[in-house]
Amino acid sequence: MVDCGCESSLPRSTLARQGTSGTLKTTIPDIDTPALLIDLDRMEANLDRAASYAEAHGLSLRPHTKTHKSTLIGGMQLERGATGLTVAKVGEAEVMAGGPVPDLLVAYPVWGEGKWARLLDVAQTVPVTVALDNLEAATGLQRHARRVGVALRILVEADLGMRRCGLPPGESLIALATAIARMPPLRLEGVMFYPGHINLAAPDGEVALAKLATDLDSVLAGFKKNGLPTGVVSGGSTPTLYHSHRIPGLTEIRPGTYVFNDCTQVAMGACGWDDCAASILTTVVSTPRPNAVVIDGGSKTFTSDPLRPRGEATFGRVLELPGARFHKMNEEHGMIDLSKHDGPPARIGQRLRIVPNHVCVTVNMHERAHGIRGESVERSWPVEGRGKLQ
Amino acid sequence: MVDCGCESSLPRSTLARQGTSGTLKTTIPDIDTPALLIDLDRMEANLDRAASYAEAHGLSLRPHTKTHKSTLIGGMQLERGATGLTVAKVGEAEVMAGGPVPDLLVAYPVWGEGKWARLLDVAQTVPVTVALDNLEAATGLQRHARRVGVALRILVEADLGMRRCGLPPGESLIALATAIARMPPLRLEGVMFYPGHINLAAPDGEVALAKLATDLDSVLAGFKKNGLPTGVVSGGSTPTLYHSHRIPGLTEIRPGTYVFNDCTQVAMGACGWDDCAASILTTVVSTPRPNAVVIDGGSKTFTSDPLRPRGEATFGRVLELPGARFHKMNEEHGMIDLSKHDGPPARIGQRLRIVPNHVCVTVNMHERAHGIRGESVERSWPVEGRGKLQ
Repeated sequence: MVDCGCESSLPRSTLARQGTSGTLKTTIPDIDTPALLIDLDRMEANLDRAASYAEAHGLSLRPHTKTHKSTLIGGMQLERGATGLTVAKVGEAEVMAGGPVPDLLVAYPVWGEGKWARLLDVAQTVPVTVALDNLEAATGLQRHARRVGVALRILVEADLGMRRCGLPPGESLIALATAIARMPPLRLEGVMFYPGHINLAAPDGEVALAKLATDLDSVLAGFKKNGLPTGVVSGGSTPTLYHSHRIPGLTEIRPGTYVFNDCTQVAMGACGWDDCAASILTTVVSTPRPNAVVIDGGSKTFTSDPLRPRGEATFGRVLELPGARFHKMNEEHGMIDLSKHDGPPARIGQRLRIVPNHVCVTVNMHERAHGIRGESVERSWPVEGRGKLQ
Repeated sequence: MVDCGCESSLPRSTLARQGTSGTLKTTIPDIDTPALLIDLDRMEANLDRAASYAEAHGLSLRPHTKTHKSTLIGGMQLERGATGLTVAKVGEAEVMAGGPVPDLLVAYPVWGEGKWARLLDVAQTVPVTVALDNLEAATGLQRHARRVGVALRILVEADLGMRRCGLPPGESLIALATAIARMPPLRLEGVMFYPGHINLAAPDGEVALAKLATDLDSVLAGFKKNGLPTGVVSGGSTPTLYHSHRIPGLTEIRPGTYVFNDCTQVAMGACGWDDCAASILTTVVSTPRPNAVVIDGGSKTFTSDPLRPRGEATFGRVLELPGARFHKMNEEHGMIDLSKHDGPPARIGQRLRIVPNHVCVTVNMHERAHGIRGESVERSWPVEGRGKLQ
């Protein structure tokens, strides 16, 4: 039974049927396209596997909600033992604070009076940790934490090779941590890093992981030498998820993409095709030339994120048409080449399900997700964190 | 005076000020980031110029609303003489039908019972034309048009080199048009094409334009020979906008991007930097290494659309930092390299305005737009057509 009441994604015939009987099952053909489908069996298996791994290795699991953007799935992660949830933006923290979360990490150097005030509003309902790499953000957060009289936990962000945010191991990192340790009601808890640069399917993957472990070791030694806390050492991405126990000192992991997986995770060896729980349901709207198919979803549905790391220039895997190449997109048009597809030609009106290159940004394009088992649509839910840019 | 009441994009201090006085002017520093800014002077100049051009050349101007996705700006286009508006999706038609539009073109081969029913609902309030390239869609639309007793105007879509939707010039196109001309209450009005493949800044641009004119001529000759109507011949993109008079037989143009322009339009020679009306206001949240700046917007704010045609791998032009290279994005992080920037280093908290690569998809990531003149925020409006995938 669908719980969405979303007229724009279910044709009126279905709604009418439901309206009169209230019991008819919704199936995939009832969903209009393009639409985000989540295979619930696969998603639950992905959640279970990560939870078991974290428990077996004594790691706290704090999933990043950037992928599902939903309090419903956040709740499923918490039911399976996650100790809290991770977000990037204050707007996402506000969304997740509306769910059953006991504890939030904002893995982002939050900046600005408006955002600090909003974050401290959240921190009055749910304990909040912020990860940051600069004293300016810490000073602003301290001011607002004092104003409302709430303690705010802080992790300093180290750059262990990602070259995004974070200070490199060394004096500047220790100096920042030392300063923050003396800025009550901020409470320094430890270190955060993001190992997004590590691709264990690449030739240099193992070397990069070993270097990261060495660098983290030196950071933790510096913290201990300076009397700084190392109670929380938070790292972990989906590609490194099941290698987390190989990073000494790590206490917490923050995978996000593992909940659904995508073509990029398969290309990086982080999962198989059968672990990909998310697909976009599309319809063939034009077959203008031999072997050319146009579907009703393009960059507004999938985003134009390329296949990483440096894969073929395609935009997803077409489940129903082996060998098909989803090679080009405009905003509302997806162009699929069937010249290497063995099978009957596609027909107008045919439904095609496509596993996206990068599921996090694809989910962000959709207002609702439809959870399926086989052909049955078991439930639908809003993507509440969608588009929370601030 | 801001008319948005959007708490998430204006800090509470501003809202409080407005609440007590109701008269204080909002300025750019009052807007939280990331946020979509529209320079109203530039936008109005873009609208005026296209309207004057269309009038001078006796062309109907039917702007594609995919770029602004707003009934407010659609209204401004209509006030300046646009004969109607263009949309791609039924959901966009529903949005625009809520504005002052006299007439809508759905430039997309709409497919499916649910969408046909919704489109005919729209067609009962606003005259609708649909462009399509297949008999299957025409048959479905005919059935629904009969059901509600409304005439639906049809353009057949020709492929004049874009290789997306549309049938090539020749027998199949004539056969489709002939069939539709006998399918009341569908009413064939003429031909549509999209010249999105033409880049007049490229070496082969003029050749491609000449070929398109020749192909269109042969299509129109075929229509006339077969007694098919050519009252509407709809083409035109932003890059070809001011060359439309060079395409004999054209009666209508459908530019979209011209309202705001972007880095790609500049790269294609379709406009100058001073014609770019849209920018994303961002904040520097981290300066982790020398010459490295991280801003609070990445692919969730800009999308990862590359600079076309085949430009440098950058994601926008940083207005405040000449020479800066916006070279990498993750979802919430934008990475800017300052090694070729002459000037003081960026500081945490600094605001940077960035002209996006592809403004249509960037606008789609934002719930609201803020219209500015100089430093003043004159008005804000919802991006109502945002995310209307269906």
